[in-house]
Amino acid sequence: MVGSCHSCDNCSNNLENYCPKMILTYSTKYHDGTITYGGYSDIMVADEHFIVRIPENLPLDAAAPLLCAGITVYSPLRFFDLDKPGMHVGVVGLGGLGHVAVKFAKAMGVKVTVISTSPGKKQEALDHLGADSFLVSRDQDGMQAAMGTMDGIIDTVSAMHPILPLIGLLKTQGKLVLVGAPEKPLELPVFPLLMGRKIVGGSCIGGMKETQEMIDFAAKNSITADIEVISMDCVNTAMDRLMKNDVRYRFVIDIGNTIKV
Amino acid sequence: MVGSCHSCDNCSNNLENYCPKMILTYSTKYHDGTITYGGYSDIMVADEHFIVRIPENLPLDAAAPLLCAGITVYSPLRFFDLDKPGMHVGVVGLGGLGHVAVKFAKAMGVKVTVISTSPGKKQEALDHLGADSFLVSRDQDGMQAAMGTMDGIIDTVSAMHPILPLIGLLKTQGKLVLVGAPEKPLELPVFPLLMGRKIVGGSCIGGMKETQEMIDFAAKNSITADIEVISMDCVNTAMDRLMKNDVRYRFVIDIGNTIKV
Repeated sequence: MVGSCHSCDNCSNNLENYCPKMILTYSTKYHDGTITYGGYSDIMVADEHFIVRIPENLPLDAAAPLLCAGITVYSPLRFFDLDKPGMHVGVVGLGGLGHVAVKFAKAMGVKVTVISTSPGKKQEALDHLGADSFLVSRDQDGMQAAMGTMDGIIDTVSAMHPILPLIGLLKTQGKLVLVGAPEKPLELPVFPLLMGRKIVGGSCIGGMKETQEMIDFAAKNSITADIEVISMDCVNTAMDRLMKNDVRYRFVIDIGNTIKV
Repeated sequence: MVGSCHSCDNCSNNLENYCPKMILTYSTKYHDGTITYGGYSDIMVADEHFIVRIPENLPLDAAAPLLCAGITVYSPLRFFDLDKPGMHVGVVGLGGLGHVAVKFAKAMGVKVTVISTSPGKKQEALDHLGADSFLVSRDQDGMQAAMGTMDGIIDTVSAMHPILPLIGLLKTQGKLVLVGAPEKPLELPVFPLLMGRKIVGGSCIGGMKETQEMIDFAAKNSITADIEVISMDCVNTAMDRLMKNDVRYRFVIDIGNTIKV
């Protein structure tokens, strides 16, 4: 985001991300009426309130996606108290958001189980990202065995999917936090929520104060996104590949080496 | 409830109500294999752990429904931090649960808005129960004007109903707590949850420690359920009237004056 009203309750509480007048980094109208182009711009003039300092030891390219994917998963881990060492947190979906969710949760000392529809992602999750265990969501025996074991789940999936099995994985008072937004409503089974005082919540990026905190935490714990750097010429190809989930895990456009001003 | 395992994490944390082996007061199997009959019994032998002391100043008949309806709404008001003076809490549905929810929330110093499909319940809600305001859920202008004003909502409705308008009534980080259990899944719109870090949670009665706390709080604040006392002969008529919502707000069977042992 690049703007907000600075006067509402949310802005006063460092929650500019929930300001009704929040301006997104791209494809929304800026104060002067122009359209924001975000990472597709060669230069950008921004209100300093919305600038994040990137610590020296973080490479700019691999740090860039943290300003969306990173804060999107870091904020709910903190806000919903899923950041205590020894806790058990599930991460649903191993994509741009999910892979950094694993890294942040592990750095917080949390035990992480990746839940995915793709059995093929197991080795990547365990060996490369350092998750503690891996569940295939269609493996009924595995899911059954994990019932009632998780303090919380960060669900990054934006496609329609059933949340009943995820609610089942939660302990009493467990928290299912949605950070992906399916277009249509999901089915919410009420009885399983009642019988364990469970909650389903949502979370959307984070405020500027917390975003700086996230990036400092990332620097301290050497957390970056796994990226593929492309030049501006390759944007359309990258978009096609994105639609096929063919990226591990974020494309970053190298503007400086592509667009000569 | 009249039994639980006494050894699981929930039982250890005074949450016998979430024990997987919890035994309901009626229509479930007791330890010895017999069926529990709850309030339809003339006498009942119970584990003292599941006995609540009713303070002297509470009439037994009007206190009885508090052991279900009362704790069902008291517990989520406390657990979800909706009990702070000056907060604004909505109560959806003005029946057995809803009418005591208004009384408890008011006694906690909370501003209460009753949300109902029945415009005819306005006077009852405001004048008799002491609610601060009343919203007809189908009144779009009224609902629109109340958007983003509530810290939380206790939703007592067990019929299918849309929760999108209720989520809209919540402030950022507001909490919609379901205590009624519709048989089929509700529609959960995800985007509105994300855009305000809101939650939808469930809650089911309360543990024994909190149930005693609730009844002591009720005694201190002279809270009872509004009841109609009937004799055992009238149970079938009462059931018919219950199906038509024709009771304000709970029937209580006067066993002592009906069944002679």
